[in-house]
Amino acid sequence: MVLRLGHRPQRDKRVTTHVALVARAFGADGIILTTKDAGVERSVNKVTELWGGPFFIRSGEPWQVVREWKKNEGEVIHLTVYGVPVQDKINDIKKSRRNKLIVVGAGKVPREIFDLSDCNISVTQQPHSEVAALAIFLHMLFDGKELNKAFSNGRLKVVPQEKGKVIVRTG
Amino acid sequence: MVLRLGHRPQRDKRVTTHVALVARAFGADGIILTTKDAGVERSVNKVTELWGGPFFIRSGEPWQVVREWKKNEGEVIHLTVYGVPVQDKINDIKKSRRNKLIVVGAGKVPREIFDLSDCNISVTQQPHSEVAALAIFLHMLFDGKELNKAFSNGRLKVVPQEKGKVIVRTG
Repeated sequence: MVLRLGHRPQRDKRVTTHVALVARAFGADGIILTTKDAGVERSVNKVTELWGGPFFIRSGEPWQVVREWKKNEGEVIHLTVYGVPVQDKINDIKKSRRNKLIVVGAGKVPREIFDLSDCNISVTQQPHSEVAALAIFLHMLFDGKELNKAFSNGRLKVVPQEKGKVIVRTG
Repeated sequence: MVLRLGHRPQRDKRVTTHVALVARAFGADGIILTTKDAGVERSVNKVTELWGGPFFIRSGEPWQVVREWKKNEGEVIHLTVYGVPVQDKINDIKKSRRNKLIVVGAGKVPREIFDLSDCNISVTQQPHSEVAALAIFLHMLFDGKELNKAFSNGRLKVVPQEKGKVIVRTG
């Protein structure tokens, strides 16, 4: 599961939508936004309805989400440019079979998140994008198998083409 | 090099900035926007100045960029959900030693781009994010080596930490 921290509806709508769609496409089971945003929820639910699931999006209070996750579910992995390089940690992370909450910040992340997380992981030591960091992390976690992930109960499907666009209706 | 097609300054400023920063962080040498955007150029140049290069950002007319690339430089690879799965093509793409122009669209991409491109490549067959598609493509193209890429003449550097944030001034 992915936790999107500090979403600011005015500023972050499109980037948060990209984060959520990447979470879905790269194999996470759902995303929690720490600020409710009906517009983002609608866009993401529309994609799940058309292209398949399962995938959920909801909002929740961050400290409660993190504490309950640690107590009941598993480990917390915070993606941040300040953390340990993903390539040095990914094998350990894969070995642990605990459920994973991946925390992705927008703007400044409170210090407590660094402390509460089981690990702080960086995807390069350069400033770029939480959308890319999440995609690369999930890609490495799932060994590229997510690229072939099948979705259930969707109504549309792309049929890959050398040139041109083919979408078929499947339901 | 990356070509960002159809950038709309009102709507795409932040997502295009993410695309450009991913291009830089994941090893591309520069990006061309098909619509001039001084704000995005400023943000990206500021990152290159602080965190190192080389990396360029400029604007250019898309058809001219694509045609000149094909004539003088190498091949054109268009990232699109409609294309052939990246995992089926990446080995062929790696084998070709020609310089690569990676085309990333915003909004609807004209049909001619599908035809002019040497290949149309999809990163999953699901709708998600051009930021993620570019990151995954470059990550697969460079075999993960881009995660260790060094930058020159930057003034800041992150020192990875298990907890907390350390940035050092290097110039």
